[in-house]
Amino acid sequence: MSGDPAAQAAAEDAVRRFLADDATARALGITVSGVAPGVVRTHMVIRPAMLNGHGTAHGAALFALGDIAFAMACNSHGLPAVGRSCSIEYLAPAAEGDAVTASAVERSVVGRTGIYDVAIVRDADGQLLAEMRGHSRVVAHPT
Amino acid sequence: MSGDPAAQAAAEDAVRRFLADDATARALGITVSGVAPGVVRTHMVIRPAMLNGHGTAHGAALFALGDIAFAMACNSHGLPAVGRSCSIEYLAPAAEGDAVTASAVERSVVGRTGIYDVAIVRDADGQLLAEMRGHSRVVAHPT
Amino acid sequence: MSGDPAAQAAAEDAVRRFLADDATARALGITVSGVAPGVVRTHMVIRPAMLNGHGTAHGAALFALGDIAFAMACNSHGLPAVGRSCSIEYLAPAAEGDAVTASAVERSVVGRTGIYDVAIVRDADGQLLAEMRGHSRVVAHPT
Amino acid sequence: MSGDPAAQAAAEDAVRRFLADDATARALGITVSGVAPGVVRTHMVIRPAMLNGHGTAHGAALFALGDIAFAMACNSHGLPAVGRSCSIEYLAPAAEGDAVTASAVERSVVGRTGIYDVAIVRDADGQLLAEMRGHSRVVAHPT
Repeated sequence: MSGDPAAQAAAEDAVRRFLADDATARALGITVSGVAPGVVRTHMVIRPAMLNGHGTAHGAALFALGDIAFAMACNSHGLPAVGRSCSIEYLAPAAEGDAVTASAVERSVVGRTGIYDVAIVRDADGQLLAEMRGHSRVVAHPT
Repeated sequence: MSGDPAAQAAAEDAVRRFLADDATARALGITVSGVAPGVVRTHMVIRPAMLNGHGTAHGAALFALGDIAFAMACNSHGLPAVGRSCSIEYLAPAAEGDAVTASAVERSVVGRTGIYDVAIVRDADGQLLAEMRGHSRVVAHPT
Repeated sequence: MSGDPAAQAAAEDAVRRFLADDATARALGITVSGVAPGVVRTHMVIRPAMLNGHGTAHGAALFALGDIAFAMACNSHGLPAVGRSCSIEYLAPAAEGDAVTASAVERSVVGRTGIYDVAIVRDADGQLLAEMRGHSRVVAHPT
Repeated sequence: MSGDPAAQAAAEDAVRRFLADDATARALGITVSGVAPGVVRTHMVIRPAMLNGHGTAHGAALFALGDIAFAMACNSHGLPAVGRSCSIEYLAPAAEGDAVTASAVERSVVGRTGIYDVAIVRDADGQLLAEMRGHSRVVAHPT
């Protein structure tokens, strides 16, 4: 929660609209919590369709969870922003049925460029699974 | 195609098994072509479930396509390898119905570490949509 | 400062030895402050020899300042560690004579892999100049 | 060498001016060869002042060599461009006295954004020491 009620309401509203419009988030069963300006948590359960050939959670599934947290966080100020680049470092595997959470936190904003750190952990034991860093760019002013 | 028939056959066999075991690749309707040692192309059509809130192809969908090309390329030598990190740079948007192709090419292998460049293009006009770079690590010797 | 006096003393000792042995840090006139386990600040003044063709601070000079903060931070636990990869995002230019500071903070350690965030700012006005992220690997146990 | 004599001459001219104006390149004793549009090789010998605490070539010294090759390559078209971000992956150590070469090659240009791959090798045995990827942005049109 932000100390600024207007900014907090704007963040919650922006994330609500973003989630409603994001077909990928819905297809993956992603839910959201902990919204504040620049901050979003996303949640997902690893399904059979999210596994790779090793039988563990696909890197692309973890990336999707973190990418959506990042996208919501960089849009939480009410100005339309897009991801410009993103990197992920895989640290530990997840298994089918694992509930996982991505926590995106704004690290800095300079001009139109934002930088976000995203940690992805397994809920059951807090194991860190991956770390991401995303760079965003504000593309237009709101109407 | 590789100049070494045995390496070429091993690459095709490794990719065939990888694709059969990759639930995410199947769920996204990804197909494969152009396999050679260290080289793989993946193909996908942007579906409604792959869109973001802007109505364009989700970054996570493009990432998945490229990540799977990368994963197959780094496993094409017959030694089990895992992605250790990956970065993506978004260059242009794709739309629903677009056929897109990711081309992964091995750039270097030093010890257990491999580096792969992946270009993602729209088939219709060759527009470059994203560039990825992946780092892999061989995890075990084959049985 | 760490709450653990032994870890704090070990960090200060490791950084002191590292700085004494780092010819590049000395050649660039880099000084250190704010040492704690996983945390190091480095300081440098932009000299004429650190400029690029645009007359602003060379990206490689800012990288060196941040890289040394990162290297000290990942060695601050007393276990020899090396940088495995590092990325830098340039956000604003610096000029000759600017005093700049890089603050490296440990973000996570999983097994032998550490991840560090490094912010580089201009002292005079706190302007963020660049953000780095480094990945380290512990290479051996201490004697 | 480019097939277009005018583009080739422009690249050589741009690199010549860039090198003359780059105080860091001169301070490190960097020389240049193999210039063509989008392509530059830089050369350097590892000096005592370029060593780290392990007695091997400092990551920041290798980064500087590659960064300068990248910067020249992205400026070789005659349009002023700046590095926006850069990443480096360290693969093998270099020693004092080693002659090393960084080869920057343009991978793609979309709009104002360019992507460059840079390989850093030891001349004596061709050992790959590091791989870099840089992203540039054209900042203005030429006068």
